[in-house]
Amino acid sequence: MSHNTFGHLFRVTTFGESHGVALGCVVDGCPPGLALEAEEIQAELDRRKPGQSRFTTQRREPDQVRILSGVFADDRTGGRQLTTGTPIALTIENTDQRSKDYSEIRDSYRPGHADYAYDAKYGFRDYRGGGRSSARETAARVAAGAIARKVIPGVTIRAALVQMGPHAIERSRWDWDETGNNPFFCPDAETAKFYETYLDAIRKDGSSIGAVIEVVAEGVAPGLGAPIYGKLDADLAAAMMSINAVKGVEIGDGFASAALRGEDNADEMRASNDGRPAFLANHAGGVLGGISTGQPIVVRFAVKPTSSILTPRRTVTSDNRDVDLITKGRHDPCVGIRAVPVAEAMMACVLADHHLRHRGQVGS
Amino acid sequence: MSHNTFGHLFRVTTFGESHGVALGCVVDGCPPGLALEAEEIQAELDRRKPGQSRFTTQRREPDQVRILSGVFADDRTGGRQLTTGTPIALTIENTDQRSKDYSEIRDSYRPGHADYAYDAKYGFRDYRGGGRSSARETAARVAAGAIARKVIPGVTIRAALVQMGPHAIERSRWDWDETGNNPFFCPDAETAKFYETYLDAIRKDGSSIGAVIEVVAEGVAPGLGAPIYGKLDADLAAAMMSINAVKGVEIGDGFASAALRGEDNADEMRASNDGRPAFLANHAGGVLGGISTGQPIVVRFAVKPTSSILTPRRTVTSDNRDVDLITKGRHDPCVGIRAVPVAEAMMACVLADHHLRHRGQVGS
Amino acid sequence: MSHNTFGHLFRVTTFGESHGVALGCVVDGCPPGLALEAEEIQAELDRRKPGQSRFTTQRREPDQVRILSGVFADDRTGGRQLTTGTPIALTIENTDQRSKDYSEIRDSYRPGHADYAYDAKYGFRDYRGGGRSSARETAARVAAGAIARKVIPGVTIRAALVQMGPHAIERSRWDWDETGNNPFFCPDAETAKFYETYLDAIRKDGSSIGAVIEVVAEGVAPGLGAPIYGKLDADLAAAMMSINAVKGVEIGDGFASAALRGEDNADEMRASNDGRPAFLANHAGGVLGGISTGQPIVVRFAVKPTSSILTPRRTVTSDNRDVDLITKGRHDPCVGIRAVPVAEAMMACVLADHHLRHRGQVGS
Amino acid sequence: MSHNTFGHLFRVTTFGESHGVALGCVVDGCPPGLALEAEEIQAELDRRKPGQSRFTTQRREPDQVRILSGVFADDRTGGRQLTTGTPIALTIENTDQRSKDYSEIRDSYRPGHADYAYDAKYGFRDYRGGGRSSARETAARVAAGAIARKVIPGVTIRAALVQMGPHAIERSRWDWDETGNNPFFCPDAETAKFYETYLDAIRKDGSSIGAVIEVVAEGVAPGLGAPIYGKLDADLAAAMMSINAVKGVEIGDGFASAALRGEDNADEMRASNDGRPAFLANHAGGVLGGISTGQPIVVRFAVKPTSSILTPRRTVTSDNRDVDLITKGRHDPCVGIRAVPVAEAMMACVLADHHLRHRGQVGS
Repeated sequence: MSHNTFGHLFRVTTFGESHGVALGCVVDGCPPGLALEAEEIQAELDRRKPGQSRFTTQRREPDQVRILSGVFADDRTGGRQLTTGTPIALTIENTDQRSKDYSEIRDSYRPGHADYAYDAKYGFRDYRGGGRSSARETAARVAAGAIARKVIPGVTIRAALVQMGPHAIERSRWDWDETGNNPFFCPDAETAKFYETYLDAIRKDGSSIGAVIEVVAEGVAPGLGAPIYGKLDADLAAAMMSINAVKGVEIGDGFASAALRGEDNADEMRASNDGRPAFLANHAGGVLGGISTGQPIVVRFAVKPTSSILTPRRTVTSDNRDVDLITKGRHDPCVGIRAVPVAEAMMACVLADHHLRHRGQVGS
Repeated sequence: MSHNTFGHLFRVTTFGESHGVALGCVVDGCPPGLALEAEEIQAELDRRKPGQSRFTTQRREPDQVRILSGVFADDRTGGRQLTTGTPIALTIENTDQRSKDYSEIRDSYRPGHADYAYDAKYGFRDYRGGGRSSARETAARVAAGAIARKVIPGVTIRAALVQMGPHAIERSRWDWDETGNNPFFCPDAETAKFYETYLDAIRKDGSSIGAVIEVVAEGVAPGLGAPIYGKLDADLAAAMMSINAVKGVEIGDGFASAALRGEDNADEMRASNDGRPAFLANHAGGVLGGISTGQPIVVRFAVKPTSSILTPRRTVTSDNRDVDLITKGRHDPCVGIRAVPVAEAMMACVLADHHLRHRGQVGS
Repeated sequence: MSHNTFGHLFRVTTFGESHGVALGCVVDGCPPGLALEAEEIQAELDRRKPGQSRFTTQRREPDQVRILSGVFADDRTGGRQLTTGTPIALTIENTDQRSKDYSEIRDSYRPGHADYAYDAKYGFRDYRGGGRSSARETAARVAAGAIARKVIPGVTIRAALVQMGPHAIERSRWDWDETGNNPFFCPDAETAKFYETYLDAIRKDGSSIGAVIEVVAEGVAPGLGAPIYGKLDADLAAAMMSINAVKGVEIGDGFASAALRGEDNADEMRASNDGRPAFLANHAGGVLGGISTGQPIVVRFAVKPTSSILTPRRTVTSDNRDVDLITKGRHDPCVGIRAVPVAEAMMACVLADHHLRHRGQVGS
Repeated sequence: MSHNTFGHLFRVTTFGESHGVALGCVVDGCPPGLALEAEEIQAELDRRKPGQSRFTTQRREPDQVRILSGVFADDRTGGRQLTTGTPIALTIENTDQRSKDYSEIRDSYRPGHADYAYDAKYGFRDYRGGGRSSARETAARVAAGAIARKVIPGVTIRAALVQMGPHAIERSRWDWDETGNNPFFCPDAETAKFYETYLDAIRKDGSSIGAVIEVVAEGVAPGLGAPIYGKLDADLAAAMMSINAVKGVEIGDGFASAALRGEDNADEMRASNDGRPAFLANHAGGVLGGISTGQPIVVRFAVKPTSSILTPRRTVTSDNRDVDLITKGRHDPCVGIRAVPVAEAMMACVLADHHLRHRGQVGS
């Protein structure tokens, strides 16, 4: 079972390999009548695109998106291009593949990569650039996320890289507006400068480093989610864990809540003028019992360092011989950076899905 | 969309409320021909059952399971009861409901509970004991997990409470065999004694505390999982996050991997006699690229303290008035304890599901 | 993959065997706030119940339904029992099993039955009364259908047996009100009398006969369905074909439309006062392009004669020996009769599912 | 809920409109290691392609397929292109759209078409050539079917047009080898000649006519299917009913079985040398209890005449005014013809899906 689809009502099926002809996705379940232009999707893709600074892979990909279906510019509605409610197929052609870079890893399993796992599952693998296991697949998710945002117009989704290696940013220093001013999506100008020096050193060492990303959604209606398997936080956990190199996910206080006492963890409430409870804290990260409370949804996740490094590592070949391996090619010294727009896209997709489910359930 | 089903080929649908007639589940997709007796399911339920020590809720429930379908004791196969491949329905009747205990929370939203979120989603709620949001639902999961273990006979699944409040157990002290010797599923006898004193104090304060659980599966074949949404770690993250009060999940090194460099994080390999790579470390927790590597699967998750405490908390009523609320009733001072067998069950269900998917995919 | 669930948003999972402990279902996705009493479900079950006339199996089953979950009689809403939006589990205990009747077919494959197919799929089978392949499973569907009807309050669903053996009823003679006045759900009193004589002869011969059922839903909103795989007519076809012994399904003019010319088949329209088109014919049976038009949904299906007959038939044993077999036990001379309430239930479930999908899609 | 995916393990998601940029599909769940070239898919598409005779629409489409992902020509396996187990995306660009032909139906609902139903569901529609409701979507199914055939190598699937208008072909005259020798996929040369004259007259009248198609799969293993909703015949019924203009589906004797007595309908068996029962008849059409018996799977379905005809028909506009409408454009006088390769493709997809499910279930 391959299972390259996520979502239930807002369903995204992605396809494509790092060095194949093209990658893309089919978004099924998008409501009709939403204005959608390729340029809007392109703007999100441009944020994730590689080769924009020396801190991401030097692969040059225009990541030009093409909408194949599901939209229609009706002259009866002023010629604006609208979604029709039918599946929206998007493609992004690969242009800078340089397959020769990867010939050496054809027969060896890169430590920390999915090479051996793919061979164990499928019997063989497309070894060019990691094939389907490459982070290049996330371009399709970002494209889908741009559509998902249309489904939840009142919701603001923002993500930031809040820790690089052991260096977390103090929360008091965060300024969301700074994330667009540096190549790290870092919410603090001063830390961004530090990260620049820090990551340059790691890059020159031929090494790599991990990171922590936080993604926050504001303006989410209360009541999104479901009690058991369709829990909003369970879906968010799966969505973030499905991003390449992610090894941990937490909601609200997350692991820190293990050390809390009940009276400190409960988010107290007071009556408010709008008829909804006004919460006095958000330890829960906006989700209780698997259902949104109307507070900001706060998710954090850890990204491991890529294992594509210049230091030789011990490994084996597919015919079970010992070798030492250096992973050349073009790679990200901190893959966490490009995970930032991907995280926003996954949040958007999960919320769009639950938004549609909520309308289906309670009936609006 | 309610969505009370988890799994794809090994599918578990649970039902039931804390104070309803009964709870249970339907397990669909279990292969035929597996020996299955109610006693085996009962043994797992007895580990999770409330009221077994002063450290869990004092509700007395026999949690007696009944198999309604999907098994058959064929005289042609010696009269042993076997699964038939058709859906296995299990029920557990509720017997100790004391609904009167909950009448006071009928109109007020308990802070840190799902009360408000349920009202926002459904318009009204079964307020008796938390209804569907009660951890009582996890009894059905434990029952399903007992069946799931049958599907993956060579796999050993063990879980332990490895941190209570801020008190983590040093890994060098862990002894899995100890988990059965104390009421905390704690893998260290000495720490268990400390937890006894520690939790007694919290209980007497009318407070509660969080915890961290680790669950490990050994003997898992390499190749289980799928590249994108059906990732083994994404499914595990969703499964653990779907357990009541869980706020964070990590695989392998988890959040600690954010601070690692590539050369430290990559699990090196050497050739081995059995033809599979011998891994020299397990930072990855047994999953790479969403697919198992044959190493132990290591998952940890954080459980928040229950918000059912005797300290008055500020909240609002469903008609938007300020009140202060004490949650009486019978509760768990550390809900993390009873999450231990639930975690094992969820691990078993996810692995059983991927085990069946793997056979379907590659063909064995 | 066993797959005992049908529906997408209104999801019904059934379980149970002919001679097991109990059968039942879990209905997930039912909207909250619908008044639901066990008596209402019972009333539908009583229509399908065996042993009510000499024309159905003489097995005596009270088919008493029990609601285990998903409802709550809230004193704040006058104590009426309402659905809560959580899964509704229903059970019906088996009481009149007489397993001894079936011992002789333990090792032989009944011709026209699923015995051999089950062995081929599962390796062995619960041979008592057909196990899971028994039409007894349809009791669970009828129970689910009673809930489904609540979800689509303005819709009237009626079914009738319109042909027994080669004897079809002329459409000009149909009177829906007659279906409750005879043991055949026959819409014509005179034909019902003929069927009585006709079926008595077949029953006395130890034989059986096929039938055609028509089920019609009136008051269905236009716009229910989906363009490709979720087509309303495709879902209806699958739903009816999933009823035991059904071998053909048609919508509207069905097979007769193969002989029509385009100008005769197209349902013309005229403007109407309510803003919707007034259709001048209904060859399409209420569905165009997989989506409802607001016209009555008309579905017909053929039920084969049961193969449980007293005439000896040639067959083989599970160890591949030739034998001749008489199927004793208690059986239906015309299983099409009891398919009538089942067809109504399946129509209700499919429409409830699409009704919820439609609200999710377009937003109402 | 849009739902453009069919299948469970072998999952096909189609996209595209009649006059959009392109149409195509994503095939997810195809096992790895199957040799697959674009030319093989193209060969199937060429059979369905419009404009090949005067008896199908005069739209000229090369229907050139492009594989975007999921295959890899590994030099380690001799450079043959193999499936990798990851999703296979296929696109077919539209080239001959002539949107101007459709401007007149922008505001009027064509009788017998999905125009009104789409507006009722989605609020507006892509009116160019029927948009998503066009039979052009079936090109994507045929492409998917070519891949599905690879998954079930021992199975032979053949379809034929066996009735045009009221003119059925006597079964004694059928010769499958003839289907490739005439533009009707007709299994009898003489009838084909008659159809030529017959359909020419209809075409010249500006009219259209219905048809019946039979599709047969031989070499299907026993044991494919599932007892309740995943019944092989229910999935086949849904698959065929999901083809444009199909109004009825039957398996084996289908509607004729309603007139049979039990002793005539039961397919008797005798022991055989290969250990499987040898069936003496195939009234069941190869499926009993929703599971294959190893006999040929026989499915028939009725296709209505297209409503795109030159005879003026009464209808209404989207603003509820009476008009008379002639549907110009390029159309099929008998859409049943091009449904023949589509039916084969759907049969292949359903069998591939159940083949993979069966291996998952019983374990091979």
